[in-house]
Amino acid sequence: MTKIIDPYGSELIKDYTKTVKDFGLEVFNSKSFPKPNKTMRRGVVFAGRDLKIIARCIKEKKPFYALSGIMPTNEEIHLGNKLVVENLKYFQEHGGNAYILVADLEAQAARGVTLEEGRKRALNFHIPAYIALGLDPKKTVFYFQSDNKEVVQFAYEAARKITLNEFKAIYGTADPGRIMSAVTQVGDVLYPQFKERMPGIIPVGIDQDPHIRLSRDVVNRMKAKKFFLPSSIYHKYTPSLDGRMKMSKSRPESCITIPEDEKSVRRKIMKAVSGGRPTLEEHRRLGAEVEKCMVFEMLKQHLVEDDKELDKIYKEYKSGKMSAGEIKEMAAEKMVAFMKDFNKKLEKARKQIDKIKFVQF
Amino acid sequence: MTKIIDPYGSELIKDYTKTVKDFGLEVFNSKSFPKPNKTMRRGVVFAGRDLKIIARCIKEKKPFYALSGIMPTNEEIHLGNKLVVENLKYFQEHGGNAYILVADLEAQAARGVTLEEGRKRALNFHIPAYIALGLDPKKTVFYFQSDNKEVVQFAYEAARKITLNEFKAIYGTADPGRIMSAVTQVGDVLYPQFKERMPGIIPVGIDQDPHIRLSRDVVNRMKAKKFFLPSSIYHKYTPSLDGRMKMSKSRPESCITIPEDEKSVRRKIMKAVSGGRPTLEEHRRLGAEVEKCMVFEMLKQHLVEDDKELDKIYKEYKSGKMSAGEIKEMAAEKMVAFMKDFNKKLEKARKQIDKIKFVQF
Repeated sequence: MTKIIDPYGSELIKDYTKTVKDFGLEVFNSKSFPKPNKTMRRGVVFAGRDLKIIARCIKEKKPFYALSGIMPTNEEIHLGNKLVVENLKYFQEHGGNAYILVADLEAQAARGVTLEEGRKRALNFHIPAYIALGLDPKKTVFYFQSDNKEVVQFAYEAARKITLNEFKAIYGTADPGRIMSAVTQVGDVLYPQFKERMPGIIPVGIDQDPHIRLSRDVVNRMKAKKFFLPSSIYHKYTPSLDGRMKMSKSRPESCITIPEDEKSVRRKIMKAVSGGRPTLEEHRRLGAEVEKCMVFEMLKQHLVEDDKELDKIYKEYKSGKMSAGEIKEMAAEKMVAFMKDFNKKLEKARKQIDKIKFVQF
Repeated sequence: MTKIIDPYGSELIKDYTKTVKDFGLEVFNSKSFPKPNKTMRRGVVFAGRDLKIIARCIKEKKPFYALSGIMPTNEEIHLGNKLVVENLKYFQEHGGNAYILVADLEAQAARGVTLEEGRKRALNFHIPAYIALGLDPKKTVFYFQSDNKEVVQFAYEAARKITLNEFKAIYGTADPGRIMSAVTQVGDVLYPQFKERMPGIIPVGIDQDPHIRLSRDVVNRMKAKKFFLPSSIYHKYTPSLDGRMKMSKSRPESCITIPEDEKSVRRKIMKAVSGGRPTLEEHRRLGAEVEKCMVFEMLKQHLVEDDKELDKIYKEYKSGKMSAGEIKEMAAEKMVAFMKDFNKKLEKARKQIDKIKFVQF
C-alpha cells in the first residue's frame, strides 16, 4: 500500500494507515490533482474512494459535483467544517458543481431541532459562515432537505435496499430517527445525479465514512449504472488541543469553535499539548517533538497558507530554536486574526443571504 | 367486559374476545351510534379505541374526521377494503370529514412500487373503486403521500419519538423500509389535525392495529394536547372461503378479489366451507351449522343489506330448510350481481376522476 504522505510526520499517521486498510480506502495522492490545496499537499486529506474518476473529470473538464451538508444545530461550527469548505472550494474552483444542503429533516429526526428553527439558524449563521470560509455562493446550489421532495422520495426507495442488520453493521447501531436520517442523506449524496448521471465527490471527516458506504451500497443495489458511485475524500481529525484523537464538545478546552472570542482562543491554545521539552535547556538541545504537537498541527491544518512559511516554522521548532511558548503565541495570534477576519466576512455574507437562490421544488 | 354482540354467533367470536382483551380495546356497541350500518349492527365491527368521543361528535355535530389509506399495489382490492369504505361512508354521512390518502411512498418503501406506477394505479383503479363502493368524492379530501410534504416532515419527527425496540414490540419485526412506512402512516393518521386539533377515527381491519398503537404512542409523547389521540374501529377478517382465519392471496381459492369474474366467483363459493351436514337427510334433521358457515358469513358481511332478509335466510338455513347448495347458489348470485354493479360504477367513477381535486402542497 502507498504510504500516507505527511511531510511533518504526525504521530496519528499510523492510526490513519490502519483506517485506510480497514475501510478499504485509497490513499490520497496530491500529485493526481492539479494545484492541490494545503490540506491536500500536507496529508490532512489522507484518503478517498474512487478518486481517479474525479481527477479525470478535472483534467478533461467533464462535469462532476462536490457536495456537503449543513447540520443546523447550534449557531457555531468547528474547524472540521473549515476543512470541508476548503475542499469544496477546491473542487468548485476546478470545475465541480458545488451543492450545499441544509439537513433540516435530519436535524429534526436526529437532534429534535424543529424545521423552523433549523431554517432560521442555517440562514442566519451556517450558510453565511460557509461563504465567509470561502465558498462562492453564486456558483453553489443550495437547498433545504425539507423542501426537496425528490430527495425524500428517494429516501423511501433507498430504505428498501438495506436490511436492519446491514444498517447496524455500517453504523454500529440503529434507531428509527437515525435510519431516516441516514437514508435521507443517501438521497442528498445522489441528488445531483437525479437529472444527469455524473461523478461526484463528498469531502468529509473520516468519521462520516458510514454515510458514504451506505450510499455506495444503495447505488450498487440499484439498476445497473443508474448512478455513478459517489467518490469521497477524507480529512483527518482536526487537532484536539489536549492531544487526544478528536476534538469534543464534552471537553470544551480541547475544542476551538468558529466563532470563538479572543480571550478563550488564547487560553485554550496556551494550555494545549505541545511538542515542548520539560525544560527550555532540553528544548534547545533536543528540539521540539513536532510530531506530538497539537499547536503545530493546527498551524499546518488551518493557519499557515504558505508552505515555505510552514517549513521555516517546522525547522526552527524542530531544531529547538523556537520554544513551545513562542509557537503557541504565534498560533494564538494567527487564530485570533482568523476569527476577526471570519467575523467580518460573516457579517458581509449575512447581508448577501437574501440574494441566494434556494432550489425550489 | 361487555360481550361482543354477534347475533349469528360466528365461531370466530372467542378469538375476537381474546383480541379485545389482549389489545386493550373497547367492545363496539352499535347502540352508541345513530343509524348503525349493517357491519356495525351485525358485530362485523367488533371493537375500537376512544369510541365515545366520536359518538359525541356525531351527536353534537362537532367536527371530526375519518381517514383511510389506499395501498396502490395490484389493480385489485379485496372484501376487507369494502368494509373499510362502508364504515368511512358511514362517518362521512354522519358529519365526519373524510380523507383518503394514496400510500405511494409506503408502497415504494414496502413493496417496491415506483411512485409513477403507484400514482397511475391509484388514479386508474383504487380511487374509482372506492367511489364505486360508495364514497362520496365531493366530500372527500384526497392526497398522495409523495405530494404531502407536511406528512413526510412529520414522519421525521415521529421517528424520533420511538426506539427500535418499541417498534419491534409493536410490529414484531423492524426493517428500514417498514420503519419509514410506519412513521409516515403516523403522519397520515394525524394529518387532518395539523391545522386544527380534532377527533378522528380510523376504520381498519384488526391486523392494522399496530399502526393505530404506534400513532397513539407518538401522540402521547408529543407536547400535551397537540393532537387528539386517534380513535379507531376494527372490523373482523372477512370470511376466508376455506374456513381459515383470514383470506390470503397465497391460497387464491380462499379469497374473492374485487373485481372478479363470474366464473371464478361461482367456482370459489361453490367450493367454500359451509355449514351443511354430511347428508341432506342429516341437514334437514339437524339444520345447518351456521356459525361455521363461511358462505352465511359472507352474506352477513357483504351481500345482504336488509336485516329481515338476513334473518329469514338464517332461520331457513339453521332449521335445515335451506341446504348448503342453496345458500351457496344464493351467495354466488348475489356476489355476481355485486361484481356487475361494481364494474358499472367503476367505469362511471373513472370518468369522474379528472374532476377530483387532490390536495396540493
